[in-house]
Order: sequence, then structure tokens, then C-alpha cells
Amino acid sequence: MSWPDVPQVLDLVGIFVFAVSGALAAVRKRLDVVGMVVLAEITALGGGILRDLLIGAVPPAAFTSLGYVLVPLAASALVFFWHPQVTRLLPAVLLFDAAGLGLFCATGTVKALDHGLSPLHAVLLGVVTAVGGGVLRDMLSGQIPSVLYDRQLYAVPAMLGAAVTAAASSAGLHGGGVTAGAAVLAFALRALAMRHGWRAPRPRGVPD
Amino acid sequence: MSWPDVPQVLDLVGIFVFAVSGALAAVRKRLDVVGMVVLAEITALGGGILRDLLIGAVPPAAFTSLGYVLVPLAASALVFFWHPQVTRLLPAVLLFDAAGLGLFCATGTVKALDHGLSPLHAVLLGVVTAVGGGVLRDMLSGQIPSVLYDRQLYAVPAMLGAAVTAAASSAGLHGGGVTAGAAVLAFALRALAMRHGWRAPRPRGVPD
Amino acid sequence: MSWPDVPQVLDLVGIFVFAVSGALAAVRKRLDVVGMVVLAEITALGGGILRDLLIGAVPPAAFTSLGYVLVPLAASALVFFWHPQVTRLLPAVLLFDAAGLGLFCATGTVKALDHGLSPLHAVLLGVVTAVGGGVLRDMLSGQIPSVLYDRQLYAVPAMLGAAVTAAASSAGLHGGGVTAGAAVLAFALRALAMRHGWRAPRPRGVPD
Repeated sequence: MSWPDVPQVLDLVGIFVFAVSGALAAVRKRLDVVGMVVLAEITALGGGILRDLLIGAVPPAAFTSLGYVLVPLAASALVFFWHPQVTRLLPAVLLFDAAGLGLFCATGTVKALDHGLSPLHAVLLGVVTAVGGGVLRDMLSGQIPSVLYDRQLYAVPAMLGAAVTAAASSAGLHGGGVTAGAAVLAFALRALAMRHGWRAPRPRGVPD
Repeated sequence: MSWPDVPQVLDLVGIFVFAVSGALAAVRKRLDVVGMVVLAEITALGGGILRDLLIGAVPPAAFTSLGYVLVPLAASALVFFWHPQVTRLLPAVLLFDAAGLGLFCATGTVKALDHGLSPLHAVLLGVVTAVGGGVLRDMLSGQIPSVLYDRQLYAVPAMLGAAVTAAASSAGLHGGGVTAGAAVLAFALRALAMRHGWRAPRPRGVPD
Repeated sequence: MSWPDVPQVLDLVGIFVFAVSGALAAVRKRLDVVGMVVLAEITALGGGILRDLLIGAVPPAAFTSLGYVLVPLAASALVFFWHPQVTRLLPAVLLFDAAGLGLFCATGTVKALDHGLSPLHAVLLGVVTAVGGGVLRDMLSGQIPSVLYDRQLYAVPAMLGAAVTAAASSAGLHGGGVTAGAAVLAFALRALAMRHGWRAPRPRGVPD
């Protein structure tokens, strides 16, 4: 066992923050510790699991890595005991969540391209990686996935980051720098949308 | 690139109509453009994706074909701008939806048989192909899948079309004519059920 | 065709009882016969299907065995005609359900280990096998999965049975006896929890 490198650490940080958002949803729904762990794991890992099933990379990465399973457990323990404090830090949690969103849309796109998918389909899978866990969290919590009414842009930044990653790859640009750049772009759009309350348009004639 | 043949065109027409039904569900739920695109894509492609995951045909066809992804986008654009007009055409939309149902239960069964599944399991997967997208649409929209209370027969015609396809195959009959015949049968039963308000029975003693 | 052996019979009994619980959910939700069959099949087979998709064992066992599909049909027929009587037998049904829970957490763990997963991940998949069908049943019925608020311990016994199975395997102990022992342990914990109303803890400060 060696020290994990920077991308791996970022990956686990993203997993952790997504897991916190799942565990907080469990608090809001007054679930017990089982529901909290399930929502934490699924929010953190669900998007990557869906991507891996769809590209045929089985078992999914979540089922071959200890860290991927243990980090959401740690997030659950944190929220179980200190959820009032974590809730007070929600603006920071949302910012870290935006960072996870950016990271996963870029890395998900790269993995799909590596498995031979077309740029368009890789973008789709990048978005699935980034938002899939949150969609499953909301479906399990009995509510319409928040990404479907995209309050303050959530899927749109993921799409931007995934599209930039795929476009760069089509232009022959690969590697950590490209992924990081695309992730930062998606993160920035999401952060700006939260700050300024930007929203995706509704169908013509449907009031907000 | 050559001209697509008739089955391919029918396939894309079915995809289009299913996508319209997903996009209309987004209007009813007052979702934004992101929710509309997601529901359109998942309604149109979800059944085939589930079938392909279950038979091990990965990546699913939806992730190797541009048309499968772009057609639901076109349907979303149509509904985004002209949903009042599309809603007024709902009887026609439902008739096209019945055609898609017939087509997909037959082609889904054929694909499952081609992958070596038994006739019974191929029928199951034909039904999954036909109704799976609608089930996912309803689950994402926060309602019980309408197929579960099968108003005016929806799964039953799909089962008929799938069973006829599998029975013909067991009798050595294959090819486009058989598929078309089974699709027309399923379509006809669904259309008759809509016209006459036929419903599947409820458990004994449960009132309608 | 030969006589099925004891594990196979137990397996089908577990399938049957899970299917009954799915069919009864359909009665409570006033679904029709289609909804009943869908819920019966998915409750009975959903956990194993999820496990098989995740370990790459496709088509899942449910799509290669006739018995797995036909037994839930038989359970649906029983509930369709005699649901008042079956409902009156609910305590017995719940006890059989606990037996199915025990059996499937152990056999699911064994299958995951056989596919080369680590003990931790095999435990996860054992739990998925045991509770996955019920989760899908609840999601399709429009309610939060009951396992998430784990009334009277449901996932916890499954986790115990799976962990014992994996630990025994790590210690070099395999075979039907180990599986049976782990299943009985999980069953016993579930039965005791039902009898004594044991519940999993809620996050600190969240009232019951």
C-alpha cells in the first residue's frame, strides 16, 4: 500500500461530500441509522455505479475499492452525531458538493471515452456520473429528483464540464490538466448559479 | 452513411413518441428544460437500456447510436415550445404510443431470443422493453407507475405481442413479417382497450 | 430433469414468500392483476437481479430459471383470490419473510465471494440480495423503502448473516452448513427484533 495520489484524494473528498448530502437527507426524512448509511452510500456511489453498469465495467469501481465504501460510512458517523453542526455549515457543504459535481462529470466522461464510447455518449455518462447518485437519493427519499427542476443549475454545469472534457479529448488533449480544467469550469458555473440564483428555463408558458 | 431502412425508421418513430410522452409528463409536473430532457430520454430509451443490461448487451444500444439520443432531444424541443398544441393532439399521441408499445415488445423479444434466452424470459424482456421507459418516467415523476394499475390495458397488449413473437420463433418463424404482425396485434389490443375502456381485473373483492 | 435438492427448494420457498409480500402490497395499493404480478416478481427477484448485474453475472439467474419466474406467478394467483385469508396469516408470512431474508443474505454473499469480490463488498451484495427486492417494491408502490427506517430491524439481521458468511469464508469455512448457520442467525435476530420491537437508532436528537 502506498500513499494515494492527488486525483485519488480528490475523488475520495468528492465521495465524502456527496455522502454527507445523502446522510443529511436521511436526517430531514427522520430515517434511522440504516437509512442514513444507505442514502450516504448511494448518493456517493450511485452515479459511478450506474456509469460502470452502462459501460460494462463490472464489478463497478465501488465494489472493488475499500475506500469507496468506507468513506461514506465515515460521513454517516459524522452526520449521525453532529448533524446540527453540519447543517449549520450547509453553504460550505454545497460548495464542496459543487466541487464533487465538477470532478465527477469530468472523470466520468474520461472513463466512458476510455471504454470506447462516442463523445456524445461519454458526455451523457459524465452527467450520469455526476448527478446519478443524487437522483437515486431523491427517489429513495420519496421525492422528485431535484435535478429535474434544476434549481440554480445542477445538471447544466455537469453537462458543461463533460462537454469540455469530451471536446478536449476529440482535439487530442488528455490528462489530469484537462480534467482539472473542465472540473473547475463546471464548479464555477454551479457556484455562480447558486450565488446569482440562475435557473434553467421552463417550457414556454409554464410559470416559475 | 446510407439511408436507414424501414425498421430503423419505425424504431426512431417509436422512440420519438415515447419521448413526447416523457416530455409532456415534465410539463404536467412543471419541471424545467433539464427535467424535460431527462424524462424524454429515459421514457424513450429506458426500456431498451434495462433489457440490454439484463441480457448483457453493453453498452446498451442507446449508448452506441446517435439517433437514439438526438431524437428525444428533438421531441423535447417540440414539446418545450408547442406543448399546448401537442397536448391538444393527445389522442393521436396515445395512438402513436400504442404503436411504439407494439413495436418495442416485439423487437425486444427478438433481441432477447437472439441472446439465447428462453421463450418465457424473452417475453418478460419484451414487456420490459415496451413498458420499462414509462415505468422509469413515472418513478422519476414521483408517481406510482401507471402500468401497475394498467388503465385500459398497457402491459397486457405488450405481453400478447411478446408472446406471439416468441411462439412464432419457437415454431421456426422469424423475420420482419413476424415482428410486424406481433406488433400490429399488440397495437390493436391496446387501441381497442383504449376505445372500449377495457381494464385488467383487480384482486377479488377490491373495488375499482 | 431431476428432483431439486434441499437448497433449491429453500430458495424457491424464499422466492415465494417474498412474492407474497409484493402481491399483498399490490392489494393495499388497490393495483390490478398486472401491478400485482409485477410487484410479486420484482419483490421476489429484484435483490438477486441487482446482485447479478453488479457482479457481472448476466443474464441474472432470474432470467435463466423457469422456477424463479413461475413461483411468483403462483404467489400472485394465491393472493389474487385469497388475499383476505393471506392477510390474516400475516404473522406467519412475516416469519417466512424473515427466513427468506436470512437465506438470501447468506447465499448472496456466497455468490459474490465466488465471483471474486472482497469480503466487505460481498457483505454489501449479500444485503442487497436480501433487501433489494423489498426496496424496489416500495419504490414502485410510491413509498419510502421501509428498510430505510428499519422498523424492527430488517437490514441489520441481513448484515449480520452476510458478515458471518464472509467471516467464515475468510476462515476457510464453506459449504451448506455455514450458509445455513448464517441464515439461521439472521432469521433469529429478525424474529427477535419483531417480537421485542427492537429498532435501529436514529441520529442524535431526532425523536422517534
